[in-house]
Amino acid sequence: MDTIEPLCVPTTADAPAAFGFEPCDGGVCAADGMRAAGVSAGFRKNPNRLDLALVVADESCVVAGTFTTNRFCAAPVTLSRERAARGRARAVVLNSGNANAATGEPGLEVARRSAEIVAAELGCAPEDVLVASTGVIGAQLPIAPFETGVPAAARALAPTAAAAHDAACAVMTTDTHPKEVAFCGAVPDGRGGEVTVHVGGFVKGSGMIQPNMATMLAVLSTDAPLTAEAAHQALLDAVRVSFNKVTVDSDTSTNDTALLFATGAAGGEKIGPDSPAYPAVAAAVRGACTELARQIAADGEGATKLVTVNVLGAASDADADTVARAIANSPLVKTAIFGHDANWGRVAAAAGKCGVPFDQRLVDIDLLGVPVCRAGLTVPMDEDDMLRRFDAPEVEITVSLNAGTSCTRIWTCDLTHDYVTINGDYRT
Amino acid sequence: MDTIEPLCVPTTADAPAAFGFEPCDGGVCAADGMRAAGVSAGFRKNPNRLDLALVVADESCVVAGTFTTNRFCAAPVTLSRERAARGRARAVVLNSGNANAATGEPGLEVARRSAEIVAAELGCAPEDVLVASTGVIGAQLPIAPFETGVPAAARALAPTAAAAHDAACAVMTTDTHPKEVAFCGAVPDGRGGEVTVHVGGFVKGSGMIQPNMATMLAVLSTDAPLTAEAAHQALLDAVRVSFNKVTVDSDTSTNDTALLFATGAAGGEKIGPDSPAYPAVAAAVRGACTELARQIAADGEGATKLVTVNVLGAASDADADTVARAIANSPLVKTAIFGHDANWGRVAAAAGKCGVPFDQRLVDIDLLGVPVCRAGLTVPMDEDDMLRRFDAPEVEITVSLNAGTSCTRIWTCDLTHDYVTINGDYRT
Repeated sequence: MDTIEPLCVPTTADAPAAFGFEPCDGGVCAADGMRAAGVSAGFRKNPNRLDLALVVADESCVVAGTFTTNRFCAAPVTLSRERAARGRARAVVLNSGNANAATGEPGLEVARRSAEIVAAELGCAPEDVLVASTGVIGAQLPIAPFETGVPAAARALAPTAAAAHDAACAVMTTDTHPKEVAFCGAVPDGRGGEVTVHVGGFVKGSGMIQPNMATMLAVLSTDAPLTAEAAHQALLDAVRVSFNKVTVDSDTSTNDTALLFATGAAGGEKIGPDSPAYPAVAAAVRGACTELARQIAADGEGATKLVTVNVLGAASDADADTVARAIANSPLVKTAIFGHDANWGRVAAAAGKCGVPFDQRLVDIDLLGVPVCRAGLTVPMDEDDMLRRFDAPEVEITVSLNAGTSCTRIWTCDLTHDYVTINGDYRT
Repeated sequence: MDTIEPLCVPTTADAPAAFGFEPCDGGVCAADGMRAAGVSAGFRKNPNRLDLALVVADESCVVAGTFTTNRFCAAPVTLSRERAARGRARAVVLNSGNANAATGEPGLEVARRSAEIVAAELGCAPEDVLVASTGVIGAQLPIAPFETGVPAAARALAPTAAAAHDAACAVMTTDTHPKEVAFCGAVPDGRGGEVTVHVGGFVKGSGMIQPNMATMLAVLSTDAPLTAEAAHQALLDAVRVSFNKVTVDSDTSTNDTALLFATGAAGGEKIGPDSPAYPAVAAAVRGACTELARQIAADGEGATKLVTVNVLGAASDADADTVARAIANSPLVKTAIFGHDANWGRVAAAAGKCGVPFDQRLVDIDLLGVPVCRAGLTVPMDEDDMLRRFDAPEVEITVSLNAGTSCTRIWTCDLTHDYVTINGDYRT
């Protein structure tokens, strides 16, 4: 029996490689005109852990941002959302160990003051400095670590892969490793020639992950000379199919933030949404976000598997998303994967529970590339073969509703003992 | 600081005791005119486990039913929904070990045939027999265990507490104990006197529990002479505030079924929705469903705590339900409770993520009866006192949004290692 080909889900034709981009080193510093640093400022009790990241453009440049939709949004989100809306910024300062969420007016004041400290170091306007925080909710964020940590970070700023790595490490919480990406490629310079551009960045996120309009904390940069409008559009389009399609535990954070700095240091004419170079740069931004999104899911708290859920043949994009999210967030599906149990009945039940109309007699399901359900009925499977397939680090679930032509792809992970352990004693 | 009083959530004024009802023995056989049995028919590999339950009224009587909204609804749901809509039935046969879901036309034929076997034993029409199944999804249900098990169950039928207990045991899957309830009280007989009526029943359910319009499998009975309309209304009103407010893992089952048999054996005039006796009987039905719902949550797979989530001050009933469900289904909230961690930030984040509008500066939160958040800001708490409070078998979370006057109450449980263990190797 043929497996389901998820043709309508974004695939290789949209990938950076299709536009001549190749992976490269450097993370958020891959783009010319960007510097970064990560230092230990004292937000965390462990003095050996980096906990303050500073990412700086050489000059004030184009910036785009997307932020959490959580009503309990954090003070840094409130401040950065307002400032990013201006379309220009010079730097972002990020801390781990404390989310500065549910902290009221005092929390906002700390966020403003930390930006002022950065502005004084860099010699720019406070409005050109964005802020982001991650960690425990409900505790006031101290200002003292910024007073010593920001000058230290400013001294450590470098345009190197090592500095980018330090910044990526400084925002980690329960992440088991830093998550970075960078692509390099040539695009039209608008003057008949070509210019080499870079797109890179880092992200943190492992728990409280079901981003909505952004992910936990992501900082991307490019030296492509994007206009503010193009940067905004490229980021939003990328986030829609990447960070917004990741769920670890259905818990949308209070602090989700994704930023894209566009320094223009690569040279060439400005790139607007209608420029010939735009599709390639947008593909690189989308590819970078997608790669980071997959890294988040694979490093979900306690995860042993990266799980990709494809839903095809839905009557609408919203239906496809609802069904895919119901499957991806189902504790029963996630524990079955942890148990290497090809229990597709749980996938069917999750699809059926979410209120999206379809006819169960038309539903096809593939698990790990094997047809397990056709027209709503079980297909005999080789249990030994399925167990062997579960040895792979990735698990793919594809559900075809045969109710329309819309589709989507969502990334998640399995639900394991380690998730319970990690979150059962996070504060202690 | 005063704790939040959840005044608008259904409380003692609506309880059976307020109408003079008292707990009694007998479960689903507490009502006159009901008999039950539970036998080992061979649906399960373990020959010592009961796996077929038969619940029978002495004569064809009023019945009301509510069923899952899952699109992948099981064959027994399709058949019983159609038959219960007639408002009358004589019996229901239930099996564990196989859900008869995703089994197509062959599964429907087995459901029909099993009802015919029961009808032949009881000497009634096959249309008067309802069916319900619970267990693995996607496997064909064998008819052979019905052919030997139903006659055995028919011989074992008795109007006793022991027989009711056997029936309750026969539908258990990952439940750790049977769940039964019964109330007894006097209501007006419509002739100037009083008549003693009983309301009782059992339920099974531990995983794949977020019932929508019904719970996993619940069979209730009363000897009150309810009309079909009154039985239907009493059941629906009760299910709305009981089974539909339980969530163990957000996974709505394919097989959810709740049935109420009303034998009328208590005597007296027929009780319609406008009869003087109706409020008391309805309260007893609601009380029975509520007690069984709490038992489901307390026995949620791997649970160590029964968790009650109250949401007050919402702008609408739907908002209250959405916020309460977001909190109750949050893996981060549920693991924090397992870890005895008074991490109210996770409660706030869960409330904020679900799209319901409110102003975080107005939100109050109580945890375990202690004010932990007022006007969106943290309230210092005595961590030792909180740890002591976590020793209790129940945990109460109360969130006041101060955005309106609607409220709700939802029951759930914590998320533990045992949940992962149970569901990581359910089929193996």
